[in-house]
Amino acid sequence: MTNTQLIFKKRPIGVPDANTWSIEKNPIPEPKEGEVLIQQHYVSLDPAMRGWMNEGKSYIEPIKIDDVMRAGSIGKVIKANNHPKYKVGDCLTGWGGVQQYVATTAENWYKVDDTLAPMPMYLGTLGMPGMTAYFGILEVGKIKSGDTVLISGAAGAVGSVVGQIAKLKGCTVVGIAGGKDKCDYMINELGFDDAIDYKSENVMLALRTKCPKGIDVFFDNVGGDILDAALVHLRMHARVVICGAISQYNATTRVKGPSNYLSLLVNRATMQGMVVLDYAKDYGNAAAEMGKWLAEGKLKSKEDVYEGIENFQSTYNRLFTGEKNGKLVLKVL
Amino acid sequence: MTNTQLIFKKRPIGVPDANTWSIEKNPIPEPKEGEVLIQQHYVSLDPAMRGWMNEGKSYIEPIKIDDVMRAGSIGKVIKANNHPKYKVGDCLTGWGGVQQYVATTAENWYKVDDTLAPMPMYLGTLGMPGMTAYFGILEVGKIKSGDTVLISGAAGAVGSVVGQIAKLKGCTVVGIAGGKDKCDYMINELGFDDAIDYKSENVMLALRTKCPKGIDVFFDNVGGDILDAALVHLRMHARVVICGAISQYNATTRVKGPSNYLSLLVNRATMQGMVVLDYAKDYGNAAAEMGKWLAEGKLKSKEDVYEGIENFQSTYNRLFTGEKNGKLVLKVL
Repeated sequence: MTNTQLIFKKRPIGVPDANTWSIEKNPIPEPKEGEVLIQQHYVSLDPAMRGWMNEGKSYIEPIKIDDVMRAGSIGKVIKANNHPKYKVGDCLTGWGGVQQYVATTAENWYKVDDTLAPMPMYLGTLGMPGMTAYFGILEVGKIKSGDTVLISGAAGAVGSVVGQIAKLKGCTVVGIAGGKDKCDYMINELGFDDAIDYKSENVMLALRTKCPKGIDVFFDNVGGDILDAALVHLRMHARVVICGAISQYNATTRVKGPSNYLSLLVNRATMQGMVVLDYAKDYGNAAAEMGKWLAEGKLKSKEDVYEGIENFQSTYNRLFTGEKNGKLVLKVL
Repeated sequence: MTNTQLIFKKRPIGVPDANTWSIEKNPIPEPKEGEVLIQQHYVSLDPAMRGWMNEGKSYIEPIKIDDVMRAGSIGKVIKANNHPKYKVGDCLTGWGGVQQYVATTAENWYKVDDTLAPMPMYLGTLGMPGMTAYFGILEVGKIKSGDTVLISGAAGAVGSVVGQIAKLKGCTVVGIAGGKDKCDYMINELGFDDAIDYKSENVMLALRTKCPKGIDVFFDNVGGDILDAALVHLRMHARVVICGAISQYNATTRVKGPSNYLSLLVNRATMQGMVVLDYAKDYGNAAAEMGKWLAEGKLKSKEDVYEGIENFQSTYNRLFTGEKNGKLVLKVL
């Protein structure tokens, strides 16, 4: 029995390639005193991973070369060495990395109930992406009933939850995504009021007809030209939530800054960045409320599960090509 | 006796030129019932003028072709036709435009006391630029004692007041301006802690040594590369006040957006636009407090006065070349 691990070998320039990671098979670790051994079932694939691979100051430390690739994960305790809190059989989610087994004190892990929801959902709607959506749209976006809310990356793990929460709060919701299937999904399954397919529509023009009163809150996961188009359509006192900029993460030249940022001045608007880790103390309450919405059928969650650490790179690439269908998760054991 | 007026003739592309305005001599108007005739003494020259000349949606209507050039102004009532509030001899400040006489209901004008402060000061520190500084740094910048405050265009009418207010509130203040004279002025006369001469220094590198703990509040009048450099040095929860972008106002290509805007995400920072007109109901209180600071010598005000409507264009250009020394004002009569 071995522990298959994905090791970070080389900081990529632009899109990661075959040299970025290597797969290693190592012995399964023994939990030390006070540790548990977790058999991991699923790891989470997120756009933020691209940022962690870069050198230099960011909101968390860059991944070190020769370390296991950082990732959120979920699994079960299979051995406990006098752990003060967790026992064999507990289902835990935390930062286990892209590997099959991890021995850890489980300090920043959370125990979840995998009979209430399937494990992959705890990496999506009930995990970091869901928390990001919840705090981003409520605390930073400060939505009010009647607001027009625009979301980029709106069919994704974060965006799809943002839009559903905004609908629950009485907003008009327009989602931007790539392709007719995703647009149909947002309108027909998630209940969004309208959708813009950035692959076949001119976003700048589409916003004129689909957000005719302008935008009160723009929740941006994408950056680039879409951010620029949204800025032109801000209403007075609009809020722009900067959650991510997936269009720029693989840039090998300078990031494209928003040329239309002076719309913030004209419209007395605010652009604010957010990182979900800041809300950790409130995750519990948020997860409880989201769980209730899920149980009541008010919130829908979709996960797209692939299998095998050997398929990590091709699966990861789907984040950037958009060839996925909900929260991207890799089954590792 | 005639009324010399500057007429807006042609929307400029880039820097305004000889075709942008024409000078006309027209009869002095007669005040209608309920109006006053104001003999204007000074008009205010402000970077915002450049924006008013463009077509299209902004925070106020564009100036119309063949209208008198819009400008803040100050003068004295020389004739009153049953005006409910003002009488001959009153000193009023408002939007009189670039002309020598104006007949008006004076609805949005304010009466000021020109024995307490010289008239040009009511166009600067006690006028729109001073109000912009006051509300921008206190209400939008939300400065606290101990904050590091960085200001661009810091020797100008707005920036110089921003920095002095920040000093009064216990902040560390660093100003960016062009040239040794302005930098010396900020440190020696205005009491700033440090200064960066963007004409002779690399702003990005200078910020590292002059704001070693990073920036809590950046008050930006300039945009472009200076905004980008400041973004790199933000501290956690920093506030960026977008007051203007003088480096971009004459751009004939697209405005340069801030490439480093993702620093807002990394640092959970906020970038917010402001327009002074929103604070009109509180001008009175602000002017009273600023007047007190001026009287106590805690606030210094400097005006740079030129003369003659025929010199409007060359004087206006000083806003953008920086060849001025304090608040730019034109004596028109």
